[in-house]
This record gives sequence, C-alpha cells and structure tokens, in this order.
Amino acid sequence: MFRIIQSRPGQPLRVQDAPDIVGPPEEDTIEWIDLVAPTDEDLSLLGERFRFHPLALEDCAHADQRPKAEEYGEYMFIVVQGFECPPEPAEQLPWHELHAFLGPNYLVTVHDGTIPALEQAWQRVAGDPALMRRGIDFVYYLVCDRMVDDNFPVLDRIADELETIEGEVLETPDKSILARIFALKSQLVSMRKVLSPQRDLFALLARRDDERISQRTALYLRDVYDHLARIVESVEGNRDLLSNALDAYMSAQGQRTNEIMKALAILSAVFMPLTFITGFFGQNFEHLPFGSDPLMYSMIASCLILPGVLLVWMKRRRWF
Amino acid sequence: MFRIIQSRPGQPLRVQDAPDIVGPPEEDTIEWIDLVAPTDEDLSLLGERFRFHPLALEDCAHADQRPKAEEYGEYMFIVVQGFECPPEPAEQLPWHELHAFLGPNYLVTVHDGTIPALEQAWQRVAGDPALMRRGIDFVYYLVCDRMVDDNFPVLDRIADELETIEGEVLETPDKSILARIFALKSQLVSMRKVLSPQRDLFALLARRDDERISQRTALYLRDVYDHLARIVESVEGNRDLLSNALDAYMSAQGQRTNEIMKALAILSAVFMPLTFITGFFGQNFEHLPFGSDPLMYSMIASCLILPGVLLVWMKRRRWF
Amino acid sequence: MFRIIQSRPGQPLRVQDAPDIVGPPEEDTIEWIDLVAPTDEDLSLLGERFRFHPLALEDCAHADQRPKAEEYGEYMFIVVQGFECPPEPAEQLPWHELHAFLGPNYLVTVHDGTIPALEQAWQRVAGDPALMRRGIDFVYYLVCDRMVDDNFPVLDRIADELETIEGEVLETPDKSILARIFALKSQLVSMRKVLSPQRDLFALLARRDDERISQRTALYLRDVYDHLARIVESVEGNRDLLSNALDAYMSAQGQRTNEIMKALAILSAVFMPLTFITGFFGQNFEHLPFGSDPLMYSMIASCLILPGVLLVWMKRRRWF
Amino acid sequence: MFRIIQSRPGQPLRVQDAPDIVGPPEEDTIEWIDLVAPTDEDLSLLGERFRFHPLALEDCAHADQRPKAEEYGEYMFIVVQGFECPPEPAEQLPWHELHAFLGPNYLVTVHDGTIPALEQAWQRVAGDPALMRRGIDFVYYLVCDRMVDDNFPVLDRIADELETIEGEVLETPDKSILARIFALKSQLVSMRKVLSPQRDLFALLARRDDERISQRTALYLRDVYDHLARIVESVEGNRDLLSNALDAYMSAQGQRTNEIMKALAILSAVFMPLTFITGFFGQNFEHLPFGSDPLMYSMIASCLILPGVLLVWMKRRRWF
Amino acid sequence: MFRIIQSRPGQPLRVQDAPDIVGPPEEDTIEWIDLVAPTDEDLSLLGERFRFHPLALEDCAHADQRPKAEEYGEYMFIVVQGFECPPEPAEQLPWHELHAFLGPNYLVTVHDGTIPALEQAWQRVAGDPALMRRGIDFVYYLVCDRMVDDNFPVLDRIADELETIEGEVLETPDKSILARIFALKSQLVSMRKVLSPQRDLFALLARRDDERISQRTALYLRDVYDHLARIVESVEGNRDLLSNALDAYMSAQGQRTNEIMKALAILSAVFMPLTFITGFFGQNFEHLPFGSDPLMYSMIASCLILPGVLLVWMKRRRWF
Repeated sequence: MFRIIQSRPGQPLRVQDAPDIVGPPEEDTIEWIDLVAPTDEDLSLLGERFRFHPLALEDCAHADQRPKAEEYGEYMFIVVQGFECPPEPAEQLPWHELHAFLGPNYLVTVHDGTIPALEQAWQRVAGDPALMRRGIDFVYYLVCDRMVDDNFPVLDRIADELETIEGEVLETPDKSILARIFALKSQLVSMRKVLSPQRDLFALLARRDDERISQRTALYLRDVYDHLARIVESVEGNRDLLSNALDAYMSAQGQRTNEIMKALAILSAVFMPLTFITGFFGQNFEHLPFGSDPLMYSMIASCLILPGVLLVWMKRRRWF
Repeated sequence: MFRIIQSRPGQPLRVQDAPDIVGPPEEDTIEWIDLVAPTDEDLSLLGERFRFHPLALEDCAHADQRPKAEEYGEYMFIVVQGFECPPEPAEQLPWHELHAFLGPNYLVTVHDGTIPALEQAWQRVAGDPALMRRGIDFVYYLVCDRMVDDNFPVLDRIADELETIEGEVLETPDKSILARIFALKSQLVSMRKVLSPQRDLFALLARRDDERISQRTALYLRDVYDHLARIVESVEGNRDLLSNALDAYMSAQGQRTNEIMKALAILSAVFMPLTFITGFFGQNFEHLPFGSDPLMYSMIASCLILPGVLLVWMKRRRWF
Repeated sequence: MFRIIQSRPGQPLRVQDAPDIVGPPEEDTIEWIDLVAPTDEDLSLLGERFRFHPLALEDCAHADQRPKAEEYGEYMFIVVQGFECPPEPAEQLPWHELHAFLGPNYLVTVHDGTIPALEQAWQRVAGDPALMRRGIDFVYYLVCDRMVDDNFPVLDRIADELETIEGEVLETPDKSILARIFALKSQLVSMRKVLSPQRDLFALLARRDDERISQRTALYLRDVYDHLARIVESVEGNRDLLSNALDAYMSAQGQRTNEIMKALAILSAVFMPLTFITGFFGQNFEHLPFGSDPLMYSMIASCLILPGVLLVWMKRRRWF
Repeated sequence: MFRIIQSRPGQPLRVQDAPDIVGPPEEDTIEWIDLVAPTDEDLSLLGERFRFHPLALEDCAHADQRPKAEEYGEYMFIVVQGFECPPEPAEQLPWHELHAFLGPNYLVTVHDGTIPALEQAWQRVAGDPALMRRGIDFVYYLVCDRMVDDNFPVLDRIADELETIEGEVLETPDKSILARIFALKSQLVSMRKVLSPQRDLFALLARRDDERISQRTALYLRDVYDHLARIVESVEGNRDLLSNALDAYMSAQGQRTNEIMKALAILSAVFMPLTFITGFFGQNFEHLPFGSDPLMYSMIASCLILPGVLLVWMKRRRWF
Repeated sequence: MFRIIQSRPGQPLRVQDAPDIVGPPEEDTIEWIDLVAPTDEDLSLLGERFRFHPLALEDCAHADQRPKAEEYGEYMFIVVQGFECPPEPAEQLPWHELHAFLGPNYLVTVHDGTIPALEQAWQRVAGDPALMRRGIDFVYYLVCDRMVDDNFPVLDRIADELETIEGEVLETPDKSILARIFALKSQLVSMRKVLSPQRDLFALLARRDDERISQRTALYLRDVYDHLARIVESVEGNRDLLSNALDAYMSAQGQRTNEIMKALAILSAVFMPLTFITGFFGQNFEHLPFGSDPLMYSMIASCLILPGVLLVWMKRRRWF
C-alpha cells in the first residue's frame, strides 16, 4: 500500500494515501513515498518509476537483510533495523526492518508491517511543512533517529531484569533463574548482531562526503551514530554482567551442594558411632564380653565422645 | 570430463559435451568450460590451451584449498567452497570446492564431483543465450550466487536443531544431548573456517577495480558478499548460543547432582536417628538401662522428633 | 546557575557569580563560563549568545552521553567523564559528566552537580591570572587533568580490595567473598566502558592539528592521554586478576567439597565394618553359628582389620 | 661445515663439500652456500666474505629466533621455522630453524642440525642445473616450500589423535585422556606461536616489490603463504575442537559423579528402611511392643513399601 | 646523584662522579649524564641546563609511568621498563624504570635505584671510547639492549616453574599448586602489561625516520624490538599453558571427588546388605520367622550375593 508526501516550492504539502504515482518524479518536487507490505506489483511499479536496481528491489521483498548502505549511482539503498520494547517481557524481541531508497530529492521507504517509529515521523513530517524543506536527507534522519531511540526502552528493561537476577542469583539459585539468564543472553546476542553493523553504517554515513547527505544533516546522523555506539556499549557491558550472573549461579549451586554434603557428614558423624555402641551392647554373648574391663569402658566412652569431637572439628574448619 | 558453452556474436549458443577443445580460444567468442573430476591429462590439456600457471593447475588437482583469488596476469584463479544440506542430519557436512579460471572472455571451472549449484547455473546459462551476453563475469556470479545460497538451508537446519537442544537441555540433560551439542559446534567451526575467508574474498572482488569484472557485475558480487556476511554472522551468533546451551547442560547436571544429594541427605536424616533408637532398645542389658529414667525418655523422644525437625529445616533452606 | 571568569589584556581578572551574560563575547576577552545544574532557560540563553547547535545543547541536558569530541565549526563540543572515590566503599562508583564547549577564546562548561575536580581548577584559575593568559585550551586541560587524576584513588582502592580478596579466597571461600568479587567486577566493567573511549578521545585531541588547541597545550593533553592509558591498562589487568580470584574461589569450593566427602568416607570406612560385626554377634541363633569355626574368627578379624587397612589406603592416596 | 653449489653461465654446476670460499663472490656466478652446525670461525669467515652485519651473524649462532625478514641493504636476512613429524608420537614436536641470507645472486643458509626438507631441496638443485638458472630466489622458494609442507603430516597426526580422543572422551573419561588433551594443546600452542608470524612473513615477501625477489618467484611464494594460511587455520580449528573435547571430558566426569551418587542413593533407599525394620524387631521388649497394634503393622508395611516407592520415584525422575 | 661521561674529539673520555654540570652543553661534546635517585633539586638543575619540559621532569620523579617515547622538539623523552630475575622465587617480580632524555649529542638517564643493566652498560662505555664515538643513540641502544635481555632469565624461570607445575598437577592436585598457578599468572599479567607497549615503542623507534636515531642504530633497535616481540609471544604462550594447568587442576580435583565417591559407594554396597542380614537374624521372634521357609533362605542368599554382584557391576562400568 502506497502513501506519499510531496513538497513543491510555494505550495502546501500534498499528503495522499494510495496515490497514483505513475508519472515520473519532477525536479523541483521533494517527495517521500512509503510502501507498507509491498506486493510484487508494487515493487515493479517502483522499479519502473525510479529505475531501481533489481537486486535492491529483491532485497525489499525479504525482511532478513543485514544493515547496509549500497551505492547505486543516483540513489543509495539503505537497510536499517530496530528492536521494539514488547508490552510484556517475551522470549524473542520484536524487531523491524526498514528498506530505504535515498535519492537527491526523494525518499522511498519499504517495510513489512507498521513501524511505530516511522509512523511518528510520518505524522510529524505531514504536519510540519518546514521539515520537508530542510531536505529529504533530514526526513530520513528523522525516521532513523526514532527507530534507534526505540531501542533504549528495550535496553532499560533488560538492565532491570539483569538487576533483579543479580539480586536473586546468590540467594535462591534455582532453575528458573537459569532460564531467564539464557533468555536475556540470547536477546543480547541478537541485539549485538543487528546493532553493531548498524553503528558502523551510521559512522560511515555521517562521515563520508556524499552529495545526497548535506553537511547539516551529517551532524544529525553523527548523533544517531552516537546513540548507537552507546547502545552497543551497553549491550557489551550487559553481556559481561550476565556472564557474571552465570558464574554466580554456578558457584551458588556448588555452595548449595557443599551445604548438603556437610549436613550429611554431620549426621553421619553423630549417629554412626552411636549406632555402633548400641550394636555393641546388643551382641548375644552371655555376659557382655569384657563387660567389666576398664578398657571396655574407655572404648565406649570414646565412642560417646567422638561425635562431640567431630562436631568441634567441623566447626573449626568452618563447615557450619 | 569436459563440457563447453560457447557464445559467438550473431550465432546461437553452442553447448557440447566432451568437446574437442584443441584450438586456441578465439577473440570474439565467450566460452565457459566445465571440467568434472579432472585427470592429469585433462589439466595439462587446459594448461596448453590457456597457458595456465603450473601452480594453479596443481591446486586444481587437490580439493583442499582455502578460498582465495590469485592474480595471474590475463586470468584470475579463484577457489570458492560451499556446504550442502545433507538429506539427513549427518555428523559431517558435505561440501564442494570449485576452482575457476576467470579470463577476459572465458571461464574455466574445475571440480571433483557434481555440484548441484553449478549444475543449476549450467542449465540456466545453456537455456538462455542472453546470460552469456552479459559477460563471462556475470556467468561466474551466477554460479557463486547459487553456491552461497545453498548454505542457507544448512544454517536453517542447524538453527532448528539448536532450538530443539535449547528446549531439551534444561529438562532432560543426558549424554546424547552433549554429543549433539558437540556435533553442532564442530559443524559451525568448519563453516566459519571456510566461509569467513570467503566473505573477505568477495568483499575484495566486489570492491577492486578489475578489468575482468565489470562495474555492473560488481554490484551483483556485492550482493553475494552480503549473503556471506549474513551467513558468517549467523554462524557466530549460533556459536554463542551453543556455548549457552553447553553452560545450561553443565548447570542442569549440577542441579541434578544437587537433587540426588538432597534425597540422600533426607533419607539419612529420617532413618539414622530411627535406627539408633531401635538399636538402643536392642541392647542386651537385663533390664533396659535407665529404663525408667525420665532423661532416657526425653532422649528417645528427641530422636523421634529429630527427623521431623531436620525435614522442616531442609524445607526452610528450600532443599526440596 | 552561571558563573564566569573573564580575562582582558591589561586588566585584572573578573570573577563573577550569576553574571549578566547577555552581551556578545568580545574579541580580546578570554572567558570561562561555568553552568551548574542547567535549566532549559539557561541553555537557551547560552544557545543565543554563542549560537551553539541545538543537538549539543540537547546533549547538555542529559548526563548520560559517551565521551566524545564533536566538531561544530567555530567551537568543539567535548564530553568527558570521571569517577570519584567514594568516602566509603559502595556498590556503585559515583561519577561525573562534564560537557564543554571549547571555542577560540571561550570555554563553557556545563554539568549537573558539583564536580570536585572542576571546583579545584576554578579556584586555581580564579587565583592566578597567568593561567588564563596561557590560553583557554590550557584552562580546559587543567580541568580534565584533575578529573582524570581523580580516577587514581578509585583504582587504588579497587587494587587494595582485590589484594584482600586474593588473600582470603583460598583460605575462607564463603558467599560474601563471591558478592565482593562480583561488585568489583561490575565496577571495573563500568570504568572500562567510560574510560576506554575517553582515552581514544584524548589521543585524538593531543594529536590532531586543531587551531583551538595550541601546540603547547597538546603536549599537556598527551600527558592526560598517558594517564588514561595507564588507568585503562590497570583496569584490564585487574579484570584479569579478578577472574583469577573467581577461579580460585571455584577451586577452593571444590576442595572444600572434596574434604567433606573424605571425612564422610573415612567415617563410613571405620564404622560400617564395626557395625556389621556387632550386628553379627547380635543374631539370635541359639549358639552363635560357626562360633567355634576358625574361618569365623578370621572373618571377624578381617572386619576389625578392615578399617585400619582402609585408613592406610586413604592415607596413601593422600586423602588426608 | 660448508658446502656449495655454483652455477656459472655456460658451465656445468659445481657442487662441492667443504669448499674453499675465500675469494669474493663473482658477479656472473649464482651460488648457494649451506652451512651446517656453524662454528664461530665459520660465521666470521662468512662475515668477511659477504660483509654480513654482526647482528645477523649473532642471530645465526642461536636457534631461538622468531620468523622474520630483515632488510640489510644488499641482502635480506630471513629466519623461518618448521615442525617435523616425529616417527613416533612424542610430547614435544621436533622443529628446525633455518637462517638464510638472500642476496642478488647468492643464498647462504645456516642451520644447526640436518633439515630433511633442505636436504631434499639440495639434492634436487644439485641434480637439475635448470633450477639454479631460474634465479637464486627460486632456489630459496624450493627450500621454504618443502619446510612448510613438512608441517602437514604433523597436522594430520594431530587431527587423527584428536578424532580418537573425541571418540573416547564421552565413553571412558579417564586421566590418561586428560594428559593427551593437554599434550595436544601444548603442541598446537607452539605451532601457532611459530607459524602464525611466519604466515605474515610470507604474505609480506610475496607482496612487496623487492629487487631480490622476481615477479615470477613471488607467485610461488604466494603459494607458500597460502599453505601456511591453511595450516594456521587448521591449528585454530583444532584448538577449538580440543577445547570442545575438554568440555566433553568435564561433563562426562560430572555425569560419572552423578551416576555414582545415584547408585549410592538407591542403595540407601533400599536398605535404610529395611535395616530400620529389622532393628525394630530386634528390640528387647518382652513382648514386642504394640505387637498387635494395627498401627504398628501399617508402619512396618510402610517401611517395606518405602523402598519400592522410592525406586519408582527415582525412575520417574530418570535417575536410572 | 649525578655522574657523567664526556667524549670530546681528540681527547680521552672524561668520566666523573658528582660532576659540576652547570655550564651549558657544548656542541662538539657527546655526553651521557646518569642521575640516580633524583632529588627535586637535581631535576630543576637538569631542567635549567637542558631546558627540559616540566611535564617530562615531573614524570622523572614518579616511577610508575608506562613505556612511551614523547617528542619534545630537540630531545625525545623515553620511558622503558624491565624485569629482573630475583635471586629467589618471589611473589612479585622486581622491576626497574628508566627515564631517558635523548638529544642530538647528549643522553640523560634518570632512575630510582641501581639498575644492573645500566651499570653494565656504563662500565662498558666508560672503558671503551669507541662506543661513544658511534653516537649517543648507540649508547642508548646499549642500555636498552641489556635491560631487555635481562627479561629472558625471568621468563626461563617462569617456564621452569610452569613445567614443574604441569608435571605435578595431574598427580597431586593440592591447594599449594593452585597458589603457585595464580602467582605465576599474576607475574605474566604484569609482564605483558609492561612489555607489550614497550614492544610497540621499539617498533616505532626502529622504523621512524628520526634525526636523533641514525640508520645504523635503527638496525640495532630493530633487534631490541625483535627480542621484545619474542618475549611477549612467550608470555602469551605461557599464559595459554597456565590456563591449561588450571583446567588440569580442576579436572584432577573432579577426578579425586569421583574416586572418593566411588570408595564410599563400594563400602556401602558391601556393608549395607550384610548389616541388613545380621539385623534380620537379630530379630526377637521366638522362632526365627520363616526360618525354615526356602523362600527365606533364597532371600538371605540374595543379600549375601548382592555385594558381589554390585562389585562386578561397578567393575564393569570401570568405577575402579
């Protein structure tokens, strides 16, 4: 489904849903075309009007690209991705992929479902004619800026969850914590996989001398780069802290085994000698053998004392 | 065994099996020669006709090269490799190695067994004369593109297997899972070993100004690079997740040991005091010693109460 | 809240709190404006007077940037951060963020709370007119130098704590040490996250030919870089030693489990055979069966000897 | 001990053992001088004739350099190393170090003991006058090629051993496997230490425009580089697989501990209740207390049933 | 305390302790001034005579710099460090820091205590006038060369210790080995921290075109670089082997736990059934119940046979 915003000098903005875009783009018009859930037909229409390269159009049809900016003569084909904070904690982070063709005076964005960040940017641009006049590259910046900033709430939730885990892991190391640690780790792995090349991408866009990106917009893209760099560093730091949490879990588990072993050893230290003594006096010799032998008594005494001695020894070694 | 596709301006394609390739290549002919399971004789024939360097020919005879592109004046010698998704999960991934000589108007491909990707490209080129006319470099792209894309089903299967393992590992950690984890890891190691230098290779081919690779084909090779980059990143991400799974296995095992220890400790806590009491009353003193002593009774009582107390204590510490 | 130090040739320093800074900066004046806890109004006042870029002013309002130096034509916008040694050991290290606009003859510093390092530099500059005359870049160096050097006491405390932990971990591995190890590690993670990009930042500032930074001051900035490099290397080294400490903890815990197991095994080796013998003679056969059989006696003897033999065997294997 | 091969235009090769090399090298002569087990005298003789730098000569006397190529004006001083496959598996891999002075028309090789690879190259060059005529750099290539290829059998043996270990480690994890794993790892560490800088060295030699290395020979050196790159990648891959094997060992050991614990727990679950019952009926009350109480019987019955219940419960948790 | 060596053309060397260095350096004089344990006064004297930068002089007063070479116009300020092999193995490696000002015709070295390497170089230079005449940069090389080579005995001792540990760790894994492993690791961490930037420093010094370092001396500095590179690689290799040793310790410990568990399980397998039987016959039924029942006998027999069966089963699973 197409929609379009057109800005012509001296005229009000033209915002249209499902427009007729058959005619070729005019020179003094700045336009932003947004295409949601593209059909093959839509794409071939685009291809005809702007003469986009078949490879780029093919990429538009599959939402599993990696962040990249490809040079195609007049226009650049840029793929960026962003995560969205799900309303409820979920196993897998929902994410969006935005394909964009950035030309000298047009921006074509193609994406599969509704992207909240793009929606906000669209409303803002449709409502404020001044934004289009700052150049189509600035409009593209607005979209990317929102998409990148939508990653921050995701990170915040991960940091909160991480803090909760850190607090619990030494106290009550059970299996569910392990599952939560691995879920977080897998989220961080996918964030790094997507956002780390995207950071490099914006470093490049902000730095390179490109006639499609004005010096003024480059400053803003540098800001986007900066946010991405901060996000990636946070992701890395969280990965570090998460492997800390895993180590903590492992040691807490070892600690737990230790404690159980100690309880078992203490029990044995107390009852094994006692059972031996009762067994001794349960023997069926007519007269208790050596019954009056002082050696005997000292032996029995030692068995009675032994549990106490063992407990003191264990106490000394700080077993409990 | 040789086969050849020749394209001459104004003439239909000539597709021949086992052709006579003695004559020198003509200038206005574009040709693709494919050589399967090369004998020494075949290679020396090639060497004579195209004056290929002995080192490159020697490489063709051994299918254990690393991905590389070597410059030899008129032609380039390129080695690429690809994995194939086996019909059934197997320990070792089957893989293919393709040696290619890319000249200004000829492409010579040499390989050991049948490569499905090459076979498809061959059929396509033999059936559509327009493809040859786009340049021999484009034909080479067609082959590589197929070979690289054949890696995706392999990755998909690995990802599926990984997901199954992640689901099972915390529930039922047994030895067979361990074996599956290590089998996956070893597959990922070999994929990275092959595909990571191959990615760098295509980055180079797509970027460098080479008279044998037209600007137009370079765009397509960049696409191949892009797919390879995505594959390598997936391989890296899967390695991360796999070491997660291994950690999970280890902790689940520790958990299991913990549980068994706990069961043992509980058993001992219940039966050791009870056995002591029965032993006590089994002693052969004529009258049960201290039998009427209230201290005695309190001691017996304490032994009866002890198991209960211990169980409560264990419950408190969340042992079960 | 604004305050200002102004140096005009041939005039004494003018140091003012809450000054009226409405007028445009004059050419022959060198001035340092410090703005604590900026309100939106303050920032827009700054923006008007110096024509600062909205993006930079927006950054000033949020104290969670990463260290960076951004070029904005006439002035540079620099963000640096530093840790402060808390009076008492704390979970989280307190840290400061300093935003600075460095122009040809002015320095504007913006920060949230009082920064001790900046306060010291302010007093020093306000008391010694010669410092301003060395150039505004030198004044900025003075602030950064102090901020960076304030990290050393933090590192010293971490090193002390680490040494204590290393001493204790093999002797008394308990849970509290684990918590201290993870607290230290998380501090080192955040120090590295902040200081490592800051190091690169000063390397850049000291090296690049910039008209705002004199050759003479660059030498001093190189010194700041040097201190940061030393700090980052210490942080890295400490991380290494900390993971050593964690390994040590894990092995000490394993050792402990070993010892408890040994005690249990020894107890069982002693009392299980003895209990068997007493049980044997507790059987209710009328005449002790085989009572006079020599085989019998040798069996009993062997049970009496067994504990001794087992203890010797354990001793040999160095179990205790 | 010196030996020499001299090639003069229009004359047969002169191959001499222990030659008189006092005279200065002549311009139209290509010569390869090999010096085994050099004495100080030999080295100073070399130094006089070719004016080699004292530092290079000093390096020749010590066989513990790192792979390097040092530029000394007319000649280059190159150190390469290679491993040899020992006839029987050994703790330490035997290795060779070859020092070479590569001049415009001479090659001087210095080494401690006999190097099989060099010996083969020597025989080949002495037997085929055409080889010398391809240039002294080609002769040097011949030596290096052999030395590098001699590493492959070493790798093959390591790979075989690794495969054996992988097969055994999950089945029978005992101490000897551990020792074998560590022996392999230490071999891989030393291979990487030597061969990784050597790979970089040949990359450099093959690439750089050097008047001592002809364009033609550079192609061959690129081949040597390629082999080294393959070797280093194999070494890295094997290190990965080896740490897999170590992880497998660890988990197999944990598994083993688990199994033993389980056996112990099952034993206890069966016999502890039974022993309690027999103890109960062994008590010396005149009439078995509560002997006719139905509660009594149910209690005894529960003790008899308990082992069965416990075994079923363990079975359910998949303990066996 | 100052001392000086001065070389003037046509005059013998002047070697003085505690000289009067007030006069400015003369042009045709080459001099090496060594300053041990510098007081503030000494440093200001130096500063006056050579106009050294205050930052460099401040660095001289603190022996905790990192290796670096700083450009200050006429002279270079270089900091290098080296470890010394202590006469007896110690926790902490003693190390030296040498600050040097390298000018066109003077070398000023400043250090805290006596450095054996510098002492040797001093004696050599004072005894051989030819050395000074090779240039002051060569004199500086002599000092550095010695300092770097003094690291080799340290490495040798570490390698010896490592080998002893490797031999012992699988045999007798006790706590003292753990302490030794961690001491070694901490030494390697500090060696790498110091020597790795120092290696980069000498790579730079040897390569860069600097008028203070002659082409001839650069060759020698390259040799120093080479030694440092070898040292750093050894340090890295040893770290690898050390973490091997730690893994070995951990597994040996697990093995040990396993063995103890096995002993315990075997003991229980033997004595638990036996104790049950004796307990059975110790029951106070008037006539042994079922005493003549064949089922009874078979049950007793099974209890007698059970230990044997269990032992065979354990044997089969290779528990001992």
